[in-house]
Amino acid sequence: MSDLPSQISVREVGPRDGLQNEDPVPTQAKVELINTLSGTGVKRIEAVSFVRPDAIPQMADADEVWRGIERAGSVRYSALVPNLRGAARALDSGLPEIEAVVSASDTHNRKNVNRGTEESLDDIAAVIELAHDRGSTCQVIVSTAWGCPYEGDVPVERVIRVAGRALADGADCISFGDTTGMATPGRVRTLIGEFRSAYPDAKLNLHFHNTRGTGLANVLTALELGVDDFDASVGGLGGCPYAPGATGNIATEELVHMVEDMGVTTGIDLEAMIEAAAAAERIIGRQLPSQVLRAGPRSRTITA
Amino acid sequence: MSDLPSQISVREVGPRDGLQNEDPVPTQAKVELINTLSGTGVKRIEAVSFVRPDAIPQMADADEVWRGIERAGSVRYSALVPNLRGAARALDSGLPEIEAVVSASDTHNRKNVNRGTEESLDDIAAVIELAHDRGSTCQVIVSTAWGCPYEGDVPVERVIRVAGRALADGADCISFGDTTGMATPGRVRTLIGEFRSAYPDAKLNLHFHNTRGTGLANVLTALELGVDDFDASVGGLGGCPYAPGATGNIATEELVHMVEDMGVTTGIDLEAMIEAAAAAERIIGRQLPSQVLRAGPRSRTITA
Repeated sequence: MSDLPSQISVREVGPRDGLQNEDPVPTQAKVELINTLSGTGVKRIEAVSFVRPDAIPQMADADEVWRGIERAGSVRYSALVPNLRGAARALDSGLPEIEAVVSASDTHNRKNVNRGTEESLDDIAAVIELAHDRGSTCQVIVSTAWGCPYEGDVPVERVIRVAGRALADGADCISFGDTTGMATPGRVRTLIGEFRSAYPDAKLNLHFHNTRGTGLANVLTALELGVDDFDASVGGLGGCPYAPGATGNIATEELVHMVEDMGVTTGIDLEAMIEAAAAAERIIGRQLPSQVLRAGPRSRTITA
Repeated sequence: MSDLPSQISVREVGPRDGLQNEDPVPTQAKVELINTLSGTGVKRIEAVSFVRPDAIPQMADADEVWRGIERAGSVRYSALVPNLRGAARALDSGLPEIEAVVSASDTHNRKNVNRGTEESLDDIAAVIELAHDRGSTCQVIVSTAWGCPYEGDVPVERVIRVAGRALADGADCISFGDTTGMATPGRVRTLIGEFRSAYPDAKLNLHFHNTRGTGLANVLTALELGVDDFDASVGGLGGCPYAPGATGNIATEELVHMVEDMGVTTGIDLEAMIEAAAAAERIIGRQLPSQVLRAGPRSRTITA
């Protein structure tokens, strides 16, 4: 598999995307988790989101968390913002990178933010401009890129058009989000192919969920297509809000375990990430879905 | 992904490999599970193993189970046998196909059957001969093909040599077993490549575990290499005996869900297999690891 990227960049999204889909945890636990993650070798961490505290109580302490962590020089931290007001808060706090999100599915977008995809794209144009004015970068996450829990399949052309609008408005990177785990390898191949044809030079991040078990198969397909930038969540933190008990994000240690064994480096210390996953499990107080956390890496033999 | 096989053959191993790694369940529950599976469209079921009842109490009722099920004409049933005596029992019972197993890892083989790999291969030669004398087929499963929980990595040349010996002795098919989930896509590619080079015409089945999350990624790699014969276990029945709480076999409904969405047919009715997985979960009385069982297929939208 010598045609794979020699290295990939992993964004750890457990502290934000993960914890936002779990029961609220104390501020200090979040700070400690981020500090632990900052020591694993991971180079990017989605730390918080600047959302309305009454809408998303899990992230009500975003400012305190951001002020409380020990910022490692080796890590680039980012924050999700829902709108221009959140963007201003994040940029005022000194975030070097923000993420704006829009759903390719109009229904999903309306359920999330009570307006349609086009309106959100208009808002995001202003968010991007503000980020650039303040010397920060802005990634635009196109969610439900491989399907919507309400609408079902989302036409590829629509996903590409939404991404293209964001790029035209200055987005520094596009992230395709498999919000409810509806991607399978064939669909990954199709969307990436279409996107690369339309925007060969655009930066691309992929955010897979393991809700239907295909998370790492999707990563493998993307790797084979040269994609080198992936999200993952320590321990697989963050369930699926649409299916009680189902799995959300792919687990960072599972991603690292697979790709490193294929000769693709991540810069992440696998054992340190497994320890961070164990810490995340203690914080949450429930078993996380990570298989590598349970079984250990393949190199861990029985010495009985 | 037009270079994938247009269809694959799935062997459902839940009733044997799955249940053998769970707490014992009543005979009637096994019979009903097999009958349910026989109605899903799956064409092969590993139904029982003819092992010593005192050694493996989970399979002590193999004869009763085999006599009790309604044998569907569309399904080819098989049984695992540990030795010549078990083979005779299975063939006396009219099994059209038996499976003999040998570990590529000498240590693992000794832990399992108290003798080395070479001695087991000698025994298996006699098992194959007996099966053929009785008009049945014999598959040889080479376990720990991608690693051993005691020895760690197992040299590819050794795995190929063990498979080659079995083929020379008349094995009708080789199955490579990822006994403790140590396979990753690069290793799958290497082993299959070496095997195909050495034995281009041999029939090949692959048996993956999802112990470290790579089960479906490994299937994807094998599909890309043209492999069209896979084991899977309904609901993901069967834990990993070496890692408490860890996952064993890949789940049949997850396999079907992924490959069918890629245009690879299985003949299996996905919804029927999900119902069978729910039945398996009720029999076992614990949550099974299948993600598709939790979340449903990607086509299941919210109609709220």
